[in-house]
Amino acid sequence: MIEAFSPRKDLEDHQADLRAVQDLLQRHRLVEKLVERQEMPKRQLVESLVHRQNLAELRAKLDAMHPADIAYVLESLPLEERLVVWILVKADRDGEILLEVSDAVRETLIRSMDSQELVAAAEQLEADEIADLAPDLPEGVIHDVFQALPIEEREQLRSAMSYPEDAAGALMDFDVVSVREDTRIDAVTRYLRRFDSLPHHTDQIFVVDRDERLKGVLPLSKLIVSELEHSVADVMVTDVVTMQARDRAREAAKAFERYDLVSAPVVDERGKLVGRVTVDKVVDFIRSESQSELLTQAGLREEEDVFSSVWASVKNRWAWLAINLMTAFIASRVIGAFEHSIEKLVALAALMPIVAGIGGNSGNQTITMIVRSIALGQVQREHGRKLLAKELGVSLLNGLIWGSALGLIAYWLYRKLPLGLVMTAAMTLNLALAATAGVLIPLTMVRLGRDPALGSSVLITAITDSGGFFIFLGLATLFLV
Amino acid sequence: MIEAFSPRKDLEDHQADLRAVQDLLQRHRLVEKLVERQEMPKRQLVESLVHRQNLAELRAKLDAMHPADIAYVLESLPLEERLVVWILVKADRDGEILLEVSDAVRETLIRSMDSQELVAAAEQLEADEIADLAPDLPEGVIHDVFQALPIEEREQLRSAMSYPEDAAGALMDFDVVSVREDTRIDAVTRYLRRFDSLPHHTDQIFVVDRDERLKGVLPLSKLIVSELEHSVADVMVTDVVTMQARDRAREAAKAFERYDLVSAPVVDERGKLVGRVTVDKVVDFIRSESQSELLTQAGLREEEDVFSSVWASVKNRWAWLAINLMTAFIASRVIGAFEHSIEKLVALAALMPIVAGIGGNSGNQTITMIVRSIALGQVQREHGRKLLAKELGVSLLNGLIWGSALGLIAYWLYRKLPLGLVMTAAMTLNLALAATAGVLIPLTMVRLGRDPALGSSVLITAITDSGGFFIFLGLATLFLV
Repeated sequence: MIEAFSPRKDLEDHQADLRAVQDLLQRHRLVEKLVERQEMPKRQLVESLVHRQNLAELRAKLDAMHPADIAYVLESLPLEERLVVWILVKADRDGEILLEVSDAVRETLIRSMDSQELVAAAEQLEADEIADLAPDLPEGVIHDVFQALPIEEREQLRSAMSYPEDAAGALMDFDVVSVREDTRIDAVTRYLRRFDSLPHHTDQIFVVDRDERLKGVLPLSKLIVSELEHSVADVMVTDVVTMQARDRAREAAKAFERYDLVSAPVVDERGKLVGRVTVDKVVDFIRSESQSELLTQAGLREEEDVFSSVWASVKNRWAWLAINLMTAFIASRVIGAFEHSIEKLVALAALMPIVAGIGGNSGNQTITMIVRSIALGQVQREHGRKLLAKELGVSLLNGLIWGSALGLIAYWLYRKLPLGLVMTAAMTLNLALAATAGVLIPLTMVRLGRDPALGSSVLITAITDSGGFFIFLGLATLFLV
Repeated sequence: MIEAFSPRKDLEDHQADLRAVQDLLQRHRLVEKLVERQEMPKRQLVESLVHRQNLAELRAKLDAMHPADIAYVLESLPLEERLVVWILVKADRDGEILLEVSDAVRETLIRSMDSQELVAAAEQLEADEIADLAPDLPEGVIHDVFQALPIEEREQLRSAMSYPEDAAGALMDFDVVSVREDTRIDAVTRYLRRFDSLPHHTDQIFVVDRDERLKGVLPLSKLIVSELEHSVADVMVTDVVTMQARDRAREAAKAFERYDLVSAPVVDERGKLVGRVTVDKVVDFIRSESQSELLTQAGLREEEDVFSSVWASVKNRWAWLAINLMTAFIASRVIGAFEHSIEKLVALAALMPIVAGIGGNSGNQTITMIVRSIALGQVQREHGRKLLAKELGVSLLNGLIWGSALGLIAYWLYRKLPLGLVMTAAMTLNLALAATAGVLIPLTMVRLGRDPALGSSVLITAITDSGGFFIFLGLATLFLV
């Protein structure tokens, strides 16, 4: 039954592609191993029929694949095999594929190409796409590409490269189809029929006045059902979500989510149409944003090529470990200050990590929720007091429940009632500290105009670690020793 | 200049809306306070002109707002004010708005409605949308809604409700426009013009045979530029990404990302067209998936209404704290086993959290990267050995660098060379343990058919904590005490 429409593409097809490529590479490797073992001279290998057949087959397979699927294969191969495949990919698809792979893998591919190849790859792309690649390209290559572009596209490239990565302009392309509002619908259809094909993600065409200022949009789904003798002005939609190139990309993405957009016009301060943002770029942006949030939370500087070298990985993870070492050192010095008490009552050493650990957990729960609500725009500064009251309530309740449980356990382990009471009190206080810091850190960050997500987890863990040790050992010193 | 096209919607407009609603609520509250202070009898308040005017103004403001913007306002208001606004929202928009708000806020709204209101709200929606709300609706309401639906939609609702949340079917709607392949393009355009408007996100119409089996798609952008006398078969695209309702939603979302789709047909096992998935649903899915990853990492069971009650929050965070308490307890018992050594050399108590902490961090870096690569399909089982070798390399390098630094610091603090050496050795070993666990845990999870992301962070932290304490205190006991 499925054969009835074999050209269709199933969701697992790209994985089958990967396996096919891996099989072909495997065969390729077997032949090469013969050479390594010197069972076949190198020259003979290159000329060998089997070898050439393998490569031809691999190349044919790659030619039939979608650029995004080739990108997937490249990402999934260890470096050596990745480069074998990369060399076989038709040169005129290099640009497209470079756009699809992750930053880390793109670096490895670009490093394997000379400037001539890079210029050729970039020249296949449109201005906004070249701008996306630009940060990874050598200076000279960008210069050469720039020189080779027609004037209009040069302007576009210059403008696309001028936006920071977190601006809506970085998501923008220049593939806008526009008409005037006094045009008749039948004229619009005739005009559109002159195109070989409309730009990708054209769900609407833009309506502008003679100064190129945006007046509205004409959705294709509306154009198609409109009477031919109407004018554009009759059927166009004027309640249009528009963005400016300097708007934050995150806000642009939220507008796409909120209003279920496929494309949105970008205008300048004067309302002149300068480009558009399409949902495919927004999807990529949302994905990469959420990935980098996850990576940052785990202390990775950036996306890492899973097959990268040991040294590249060490560099990527270095900064975070250094920060963590510093906070751990501070916590260690807090403990050091109480060594005298620990010497007298060694149970403290065994119990103190519990107080610190639970505090860190609870604090991370609070701060994650607050940071998220701030990002969604749900929390304003004036809510601070309300939120703090609530979180303190949560922490007191948790402190009493878990603190009492731990107090009992401490008593049961060491048969010292005062130790149990100190444990309960320290837990409750550290949870309250965690709640307070969890609310105040992100709200303060916002007030200082910083991203509340950045480093919030490190900061709160540092506070609850050192704070937890201090509270617990301090109380113990006061009441037990 | 901006006034030239005032109907346009800027990215900040919804925030201005929120502020406007808050101002109106503020005025509303001021009047109510007069009643509370008994400076005005309740009956007089209700009848008071000011009061009625305030509410009318608020209602007018809400009527003019997009459902998604009202949802944003509802999310951003504390419970009491949220319900004031909710009552003022026109009843015929309830359904749409319930779809837009987060699960946690939806619960609070639904709790405030009686069954009649809920049935009325659900009846405004399409089958796939009702299915989205269904988990939050009381049994009786779903029954009533079901009875009220026409037969075709009943079938759709039944089918939509039958898919688990993580299946592509859960993203599916039934708004498909389809034509036969032997139709002429001009007939297609005439057919489409009979619609008042095409369903949202119609970027392509589906081409089916007389048994409703999918033969291809006809993108609107292609339809618009096609010659009228061609037949659909001449211009349709047959290389179509299709999904089945039982495919995993995550795979469906990846296909949208990979191939930049706006909509995709859903077929059954026989290739019969049953519905479609659109990019707006995919964007929501990606967002909620990444949110729940972040929340899970921080130990929150689910999305939390930031203004929810203390008790609801405690329940949401309970499970994680309990697990954490258990792992902390185990670590504490490991330390307890070495109390004798700590008593003799109390510096161990101060240094041990550093070894455990850095191990936890490094392990989380490794496991996050591996889990992410598995999710992207880049890592297969056969890569295990290669990845382990690399991660061990990274950990040894880090162990030597940071371990030596810490060894020096320990020596400097306590003037004991052997203590410094034990510190360095323990750091290196714990980092190697972290690397091993970081690679093996997710790969084992995959082999067992489980989600490698779930609980991986807790597990690795537990291992590096207990392991770190054991290694450090064990070495110290062997060589120092």
